[in-house]
Amino acid sequence: MSARAIVVDWGTSSFRAWLIERDGGAVLDEIPKGKGLLDLTREGFPDYCRERLAGWRDGAADGATAVPIYMAGMVGSAQGWMTAPQPPVPIDLAAVAAATVPAEGLEAAWILPGCRRVDPEGVPDVMRGEEIQVMGALLASGRDAAVLCLPGTHSKWAWAREGALVDFTTSMTGEVYGLLLEHSLLGRTARRDAPWQEDAFRLGLEQSRRGGGLLHHLFTARSRNLAGELSPEQTPSYLSGLLIGHELAAMAPRIGTPEEPLLLIGAGELRRPYEVAVALQGWRADWLDAATATLRGIAAVIRRHG
Amino acid sequence: MSARAIVVDWGTSSFRAWLIERDGGAVLDEIPKGKGLLDLTREGFPDYCRERLAGWRDGAADGATAVPIYMAGMVGSAQGWMTAPQPPVPIDLAAVAAATVPAEGLEAAWILPGCRRVDPEGVPDVMRGEEIQVMGALLASGRDAAVLCLPGTHSKWAWAREGALVDFTTSMTGEVYGLLLEHSLLGRTARRDAPWQEDAFRLGLEQSRRGGGLLHHLFTARSRNLAGELSPEQTPSYLSGLLIGHELAAMAPRIGTPEEPLLLIGAGELRRPYEVAVALQGWRADWLDAATATLRGIAAVIRRHG
Repeated sequence: MSARAIVVDWGTSSFRAWLIERDGGAVLDEIPKGKGLLDLTREGFPDYCRERLAGWRDGAADGATAVPIYMAGMVGSAQGWMTAPQPPVPIDLAAVAAATVPAEGLEAAWILPGCRRVDPEGVPDVMRGEEIQVMGALLASGRDAAVLCLPGTHSKWAWAREGALVDFTTSMTGEVYGLLLEHSLLGRTARRDAPWQEDAFRLGLEQSRRGGGLLHHLFTARSRNLAGELSPEQTPSYLSGLLIGHELAAMAPRIGTPEEPLLLIGAGELRRPYEVAVALQGWRADWLDAATATLRGIAAVIRRHG
Repeated sequence: MSARAIVVDWGTSSFRAWLIERDGGAVLDEIPKGKGLLDLTREGFPDYCRERLAGWRDGAADGATAVPIYMAGMVGSAQGWMTAPQPPVPIDLAAVAAATVPAEGLEAAWILPGCRRVDPEGVPDVMRGEEIQVMGALLASGRDAAVLCLPGTHSKWAWAREGALVDFTTSMTGEVYGLLLEHSLLGRTARRDAPWQEDAFRLGLEQSRRGGGLLHHLFTARSRNLAGELSPEQTPSYLSGLLIGHELAAMAPRIGTPEEPLLLIGAGELRRPYEVAVALQGWRADWLDAATATLRGIAAVIRRHG
């Protein structure tokens, strides 16, 4: 068995890879950027992997065994390389390792499975990739239980106990934000490239805590614009405050007053907005970089695989 | 003074005009369709009106006075012909007539003003055209007080007392529905042209009444699709049920248990969905066609003008 492994985080618009030591998980090399799934055809995935990772695969100093590749993210969806079926929660590192499937068309390559849940009313929910970040974050923070928030296009809130992901729920916060800025009437009077403004973000958060509902609150961006109370530069931050405020308010009944800090896992630009929103909700939170959590999680799965 | 008048309902994408008897409001002729504001330049509005309405203007049998034109809708906004400033609520027929402004560049033509309100927290809201429908609906139903719902791109809920519009609030229900179907991930697995399906609509309404919030509920369209529990044909109706359900739930604390039926005012295709949603909320409602309410309201303003 190779002493090294290759970790790939492959999404619809992103590709990131690391060469790591199998045992300790230490990073030996990194490819920070590559083609997303939508930039390729399905038939092209194996060749792209082979070519992009050739230097690491063939350069292994430890004999004839190819360095194995472990892939997580939308690469395992129906729109990706192939469907890696999602086991139900609760799911831990061993369960992820057991459900990892060989990638068709490339030797010594595996796709991690994602997971699914069904809520008390019987409504399904799915994730693909964030479960790895949840487990990686637990390891990185030395905890075996946590409430976790993974903001993004489809924000995930997750509950972990005894090292396992036991429940989660999805909010379309980031996607709705993008839709409003790019395609709605509100976007026409917004400066989309304006830097984040904490005052406007807090104004949106405050609005989200009032009555009237999200669909009404969104229109206040328009009426405040017309009244000269919200500038085009402030509009994106205000909308972000509205949406993140509603996301958190909907989670509040399930979260109550947690004894331990939440774990917030994301890309850097979401850190400050979510920290502000979480603090206003009266919660404490520790921040973890998403890539760190992914890498840590996959490395731990790899040690339990095969 | 001419015994006749011309009523124009002019929006960004629609133009509709009627020739009426000034006193009784009886409709003598109609132009059901014309160019919306976005189809013309600002400089082109007077000429378009002059040409489109020439037959009615010049053909007046009652002497030299031009038949007056009264315009309502987005024609009075900054993006329309010219801004007709919006007086604050409460506003009644006499107040609308008093705030009606002459349209620049065309003799004997007037633009109705719209109205504005500020909520208890100081947040502004605006309407332009629906206030006319509210007053027209009161006249048509023989009532001087009502809670009214005017569904659409920007749904309005309005409160009327003693024949005056006293308060209102806006929800971006229709616009968000369009954004989701046309531009979101959910739209990719939806048959946008599928006919309305009551079962799927009711499923969306039921989901909207559970916890988790709108941003989470939207994602259930995706996860139900993936689980094979919601077809592409059902997705538009399901999303509509989610959004209308959230719109109504947000209004519920203000509406309580009304003694009189609500007045629902809209285009025909919204009738059945809103009637189903309102009934599930435990409210009764009477339906009025939007064009009828507009015409009735403007005719009543005209009789109080000049």
